Amino acid sequence: MNITLTSIGHVRTIRADPTDDNWDNETTRIDLDTTRFTADALLSLDSFSQVEVLYWFHHAEAAISALGAHHPRDNTAWPLAGIFAQRGKNRPNRIGLTICKVLKVECTTLHVEGLDAIDSTPVLDLKPWMIGFAPRENAREPQWAKELLSGY
Amino acid sequence: MNITLTSIGHVRTIRADPTDDNWDNETTRIDLDTTRFTADALLSLDSFSQVEVLYWFHHAEAAISALGAHHPRDNTAWPLAGIFAQRGKNRPNRIGLTICKVLKVECTTLHVEGLDAIDSTPVLDLKPWMIGFAPRENAREPQWAKELLSGY
Repeated sequence: MNITLTSIGHVRTIRADPTDDNWDNETTRIDLDTTRFTADALLSLDSFSQVEVLYWFHHAEAAISALGAHHPRDNTAWPLAGIFAQRGKNRPNRIGLTICKVLKVECTTLHVEGLDAIDSTPVLDLKPWMIGFAPRENAREPQWAKELLSGY
Repeated sequence: MNITLTSIGHVRTIRADPTDDNWDNETTRIDLDTTRFTADALLSLDSFSQVEVLYWFHHAEAAISALGAHHPRDNTAWPLAGIFAQRGKNRPNRIGLTICKVLKVECTTLHVEGLDAIDSTPVLDLKPWMIGFAPRENAREPQWAKELLSGY
């Protein structure tokens, strides 16, 4: 089944290079498409401290999406993991998802911290982070996931 | 910019009715599209306790997506909030996103708990829940969000 989406806006940042690490302190602007949205669309989003940003890895376009298992970041010290046991950008549907800190809403622009997306990235959706949707119990993850994120 | 996605699989559950509450104890199967994926795609996903399931609200099709501000669940006791300050299904691009408990991986089938999606829902992506991507500080949310989720 094919599903056609339309970006709701774009990422504006000085970061144009899709390197893998040190994203934590990036501050980024998301400009909504003003032909479709007014300030109403972001009303009250700043009453939440965090927002989930869904975006499209547009630069992964040329690559064939990995469908099977491979070593995360091609690091053979880490075990093989399926594409759905990883979060890398070279994946089916190429949707990225990051929980960001809400800094400020200004009309049709949202300012966030911690978004790991490069300039011009199409944004697909914004969802407020609701505490009731967080994992209900302590999360468990493999050691490689901790190591992978240690420099992120 | 138009973006075309293809579902990676479908939700299989006895729940066929998109009512709003009591989703917490649902156990659900996600069957990958076996014309494209093998068991490799889910390898190691069960080393994570939680998974983020991205899916498509296919039954919201007929409705015009809300683009502006409205009362969550049309409850006028709650304040107006923009569509991007809410998580309801009637939204641009109609992407749903839920953090679910991983129960079991069986070949190309993933069994989860807590997925608020009805039978036949197209699934867009699966991402392991990595602790390092969780909010770094205590989350803040408005009172209406707590009330909305109290019966979910």
